[in-house]
Amino acid sequence: MEGRCASLTKTALLAGEGLLPVAIAQSLALRGTPPTVIALGNTNPLLESLAERVLPVPRISMDGILRLIEREGCKQVILAGAVPKRWIFGGGPVDPETLAWIRTLPSRDDHALLGSIVALFQSRGLEVVPYRLLIPEALAPEGTIAGREPTEEEREEILYGIGIARRLVPLSFGQSLVVRAGAVVAVEAMEGTDEMIARAGRIFPGGTVVKMMRPDQDERFDVPTVGPQTLECMAQAGLACLAVEAGRTVILDRERFGQLAKEHSISVTGFLP
Amino acid sequence: MEGRCASLTKTALLAGEGLLPVAIAQSLALRGTPPTVIALGNTNPLLESLAERVLPVPRISMDGILRLIEREGCKQVILAGAVPKRWIFGGGPVDPETLAWIRTLPSRDDHALLGSIVALFQSRGLEVVPYRLLIPEALAPEGTIAGREPTEEEREEILYGIGIARRLVPLSFGQSLVVRAGAVVAVEAMEGTDEMIARAGRIFPGGTVVKMMRPDQDERFDVPTVGPQTLECMAQAGLACLAVEAGRTVILDRERFGQLAKEHSISVTGFLP
Repeated sequence: MEGRCASLTKTALLAGEGLLPVAIAQSLALRGTPPTVIALGNTNPLLESLAERVLPVPRISMDGILRLIEREGCKQVILAGAVPKRWIFGGGPVDPETLAWIRTLPSRDDHALLGSIVALFQSRGLEVVPYRLLIPEALAPEGTIAGREPTEEEREEILYGIGIARRLVPLSFGQSLVVRAGAVVAVEAMEGTDEMIARAGRIFPGGTVVKMMRPDQDERFDVPTVGPQTLECMAQAGLACLAVEAGRTVILDRERFGQLAKEHSISVTGFLP
Repeated sequence: MEGRCASLTKTALLAGEGLLPVAIAQSLALRGTPPTVIALGNTNPLLESLAERVLPVPRISMDGILRLIEREGCKQVILAGAVPKRWIFGGGPVDPETLAWIRTLPSRDDHALLGSIVALFQSRGLEVVPYRLLIPEALAPEGTIAGREPTEEEREEILYGIGIARRLVPLSFGQSLVVRAGAVVAVEAMEGTDEMIARAGRIFPGGTVVKMMRPDQDERFDVPTVGPQTLECMAQAGLACLAVEAGRTVILDRERFGQLAKEHSISVTGFLP
């Protein structure tokens, strides 16, 4: 295993918020190649113990980040974790040149924006590493993943939700929705999954959360992620069924995730789209 | 005019919430054929002075409504106004037989549900009258409708929003979204337009609201509606541009709508899809 991954030296982990960068850093540390973390926003403090070093970037500048990666001698980059999308509209710590560069892009939907960032890294000779393969144990399998089996009604909701999601996710503004009894309750855009779940619960409890990525999405930089927080949000909102795409969804903190699903009697299923 | 509409006698107006049923009742009253209002939920008290009579339905029963219409001797029905969609899931004053009937429908999205209700009325020999033609003065024209002209940036947002809406509205769960600088901020499902506008404002102020109906939507029972309340919500959320589909959007209380657009410097445009 070590030999196979020996090429993974001097990897920069461009880390946003959440547990995903932690899982990746842990995997790299276990292989003996802890990453150099470039921390955007409120990154998890656990990264300190898992990284070669953590370089906080209080103000995001694409040019500054590129020069930092080069100065550190990294040849490989992993992009992971959440960066609030509103930042790219001037509502966050992003420098004016980066905002101007974003404004030159032909499209700024999720797909286009991340694609442009990856292309920029590649144009500077950096390899963007698919993190999915670093944490295979975290990928959702097909079938019942945690908690109880879905009920017959929930199975129908999952199927209905997949049908809508298939046509929705190519529009590239969100990856999840809540359905109930053959109707769509809530659709996610820039507010994020947790807020959408809370909204669906306010409209009425019940319903099924379906999360899916677009078919042509590049798995290197934007695999959907669920974790204990997703289940906590669902329990609070009174939603008891979650369906995620098998093989293309990362489940964070699997042990706690399983405990919570059981505790709140939530059904978590992996489906093939 | 009176002669042409003389056939509009004994019309039942199945009225939900909002100003749309009021505008329709007013039009009918002016023609000398005030409707018999069947009031679902919190209907506007103004209906009292515009209707032949108002029959409140504290508990919705499709069978009860049909028998009421027949007992009143109405041959024509107009469906207008909002009924909270969560009611159809048992969260409101709907009787068990009606809920059971809804559960037998092959699909319960907006399009299917309303289509089934119309078909039910027709199967009982009732004509469902397209209210759009009763209030032609309330339909949105093409071009600048109220307030200022859109800025160049807003024109781009409108075009981007129309492109997304065209692919979104056929999924039949909502008619509006908020876009900003080439990205989707918020998409409406069951929470309704006003709550979606408020959410978009919380994510960040600015952005354009685009509202559109699906191409095959039956204009008899579900034309998108905007009014003073829409502009009040937008002003509060810090959104300053609204684009609606020309010819297929009802603008309620046009005078107050125009005043508010001017007051809050909101640009309202009608577009052809």
